Amino acid sequence: MNLIEEFNAYRSKMNERIMDSDNLVIKRFFNLDTNTYAEGALEVKTKEMIGLACSMVLRCDDCIKYHLGKSHEAGLGRKEIFEVFSIALVIGGSIVIPHLRRAVEYWEGLEKQGNV
Amino acid sequence: MNLIEEFNAYRSKMNERIMDSDNLVIKRFFNLDTNTYAEGALEVKTKEMIGLACSMVLRCDDCIKYHLGKSHEAGLGRKEIFEVFSIALVIGGSIVIPHLRRAVEYWEGLEKQGNV
Amino acid sequence: MNLIEEFNAYRSKMNERIMDSDNLVIKRFFNLDTNTYAEGALEVKTKEMIGLACSMVLRCDDCIKYHLGKSHEAGLGRKEIFEVFSIALVIGGSIVIPHLRRAVEYWEGLEKQGNV
Amino acid sequence: MNLIEEFNAYRSKMNERIMDSDNLVIKRFFNLDTNTYAEGALEVKTKEMIGLACSMVLRCDDCIKYHLGKSHEAGLGRKEIFEVFSIALVIGGSIVIPHLRRAVEYWEGLEKQGNV
Amino acid sequence: MNLIEEFNAYRSKMNERIMDSDNLVIKRFFNLDTNTYAEGALEVKTKEMIGLACSMVLRCDDCIKYHLGKSHEAGLGRKEIFEVFSIALVIGGSIVIPHLRRAVEYWEGLEKQGNV
Amino acid sequence: MNLIEEFNAYRSKMNERIMDSDNLVIKRFFNLDTNTYAEGALEVKTKEMIGLACSMVLRCDDCIKYHLGKSHEAGLGRKEIFEVFSIALVIGGSIVIPHLRRAVEYWEGLEKQGNV
Repeated sequence: MNLIEEFNAYRSKMNERIMDSDNLVIKRFFNLDTNTYAEGALEVKTKEMIGLACSMVLRCDDCIKYHLGKSHEAGLGRKEIFEVFSIALVIGGSIVIPHLRRAVEYWEGLEKQGNV
Repeated sequence: MNLIEEFNAYRSKMNERIMDSDNLVIKRFFNLDTNTYAEGALEVKTKEMIGLACSMVLRCDDCIKYHLGKSHEAGLGRKEIFEVFSIALVIGGSIVIPHLRRAVEYWEGLEKQGNV
Repeated sequence: MNLIEEFNAYRSKMNERIMDSDNLVIKRFFNLDTNTYAEGALEVKTKEMIGLACSMVLRCDDCIKYHLGKSHEAGLGRKEIFEVFSIALVIGGSIVIPHLRRAVEYWEGLEKQGNV
Repeated sequence: MNLIEEFNAYRSKMNERIMDSDNLVIKRFFNLDTNTYAEGALEVKTKEMIGLACSMVLRCDDCIKYHLGKSHEAGLGRKEIFEVFSIALVIGGSIVIPHLRRAVEYWEGLEKQGNV
Repeated sequence: MNLIEEFNAYRSKMNERIMDSDNLVIKRFFNLDTNTYAEGALEVKTKEMIGLACSMVLRCDDCIKYHLGKSHEAGLGRKEIFEVFSIALVIGGSIVIPHLRRAVEYWEGLEKQGNV
Repeated sequence: MNLIEEFNAYRSKMNERIMDSDNLVIKRFFNLDTNTYAEGALEVKTKEMIGLACSMVLRCDDCIKYHLGKSHEAGLGRKEIFEVFSIALVIGGSIVIPHLRRAVEYWEGLEKQGNV
């Protein structure tokens, strides 16, 4: 199982278990989170880039992976993704670098895999 | 002097004093920071929205003000700005709310002032 | 206008303006935020102490003020509040201290004012 | 060795090596940290829930595991723990989600294992 | 009252009130915090620069002011302080800039005031 | 491959791939980052201790490893390193502890390996 499959499998499995817990606040939060990235005044691409950059400055590897996957699905290309990386790096500083390394590895995994 | 003029005046005054210090690393960082938001694979509008959202999740009021000013100059409208706010709020959680309050106040100041 | 009235007035005024914006994600977030602190398996007092401690380690002065007000309303006393402070201080470290200073000032304002 | 044993074993081993270093400030900090969670005006359960929520909003997986273990020992149940999770999620936002996934996995490990 | 006197006056007043609270954990934390910066294997100057840089990347204005005061007392000069600033800026990124502005203002206040 | 070799190998491999991306802002940031730690008004040792402490309070394991390696190369000894650890612990609080554990493990790996 590669990086991408591993991430998605664990994510799906645990999200299900969280939903099973029947905590209403958590369920509503997850629902709201999904709605946040739906097309509105901004298109999905733009929202995903915003989600990606925020995940990088907050240094959340799993969030980065998730938004990289969605950005790839939305058709964003390498040049655009690296510009998002560059903004996050300048805003968040050198502590973003270790997350950038893992982000580049994950992104290149997505490129190799192609569109599914 | 209103909120916007006050912010810009202090920012300009202190940036000058920082430049006077002749620390090369700081100077190069400031220069790099400016270049980051120049048009590239992404347009200026998109970069400013990314900068704004990152500033909100990192809860930096002055950074928010700066990117709101730039977003306004770039022609972004109320609906788009509030969608950026909503993404930052869901990613960053309720601790973003106090910064959202001040951001809305500043944004409405920019709207009243119109394009300069 | 004292510290407490000032905080509450600005908070109410800006919350209204945020609601006026008609951004659905933001509205639902605010609604969810309110529900989070309603009595459930945990009583309101406990939830407010949790909200207070989280606000301190995340160093959000306005969030601290809000939860101090709610904790006071819920009948929490000085000894309990200072134990919450002590936990937040040890978890969050010395950078919490400036926020602790302002929290103590605000709490003592609430004590003087009595229950309303 | 399961998740719980692995965490505890590494924690114990490294705490010992840290104590061996004979740095007085570090030793006193560790001692203070232990005292913080002792029964006082607040009972142990409440303090552990506060410690857990703070660990989640600060996104520290090992701290979460530690406080989950202590919360379990203190007799807290699933419904209470998930309410703590829900508060932390709303305060800290969607970047808490990956930590929530791992927290749920660890908590369910503790439930399976029962009281020791 | 200038920036420096104002900061010191509020800090002293509130520290006293915190000590009056008789919370043992908080008292011991304050005591430990003081001991941390005493001469040891590292000299006071070095410790103050470390405290200053950490305060900047954590974006705590009051902590920055405190360590700038102590650094000035310890005899650190402008060139050294600006190198500390530059390291904090590169590590912490552009969100450090607003704190850098206020730090430079405070430092120049200390320079004008001379050694006391 | 031990902890140290593994860290260095991944770091080198990914830095190369990041450089290959030809994003000018990222390249300039990496270059600036390197220059930041060069001898200036402060010596390399001092800068590395500052970098180490900042990495700890920001809780970035890879950044900690990097600066521990550089600190070791610069000739810093165990007593000095543990004083840096103690400052970071008091500033950043108990959430630094899990990173301290891994830092001590890595540092002891460097000690065993000797100077290369």
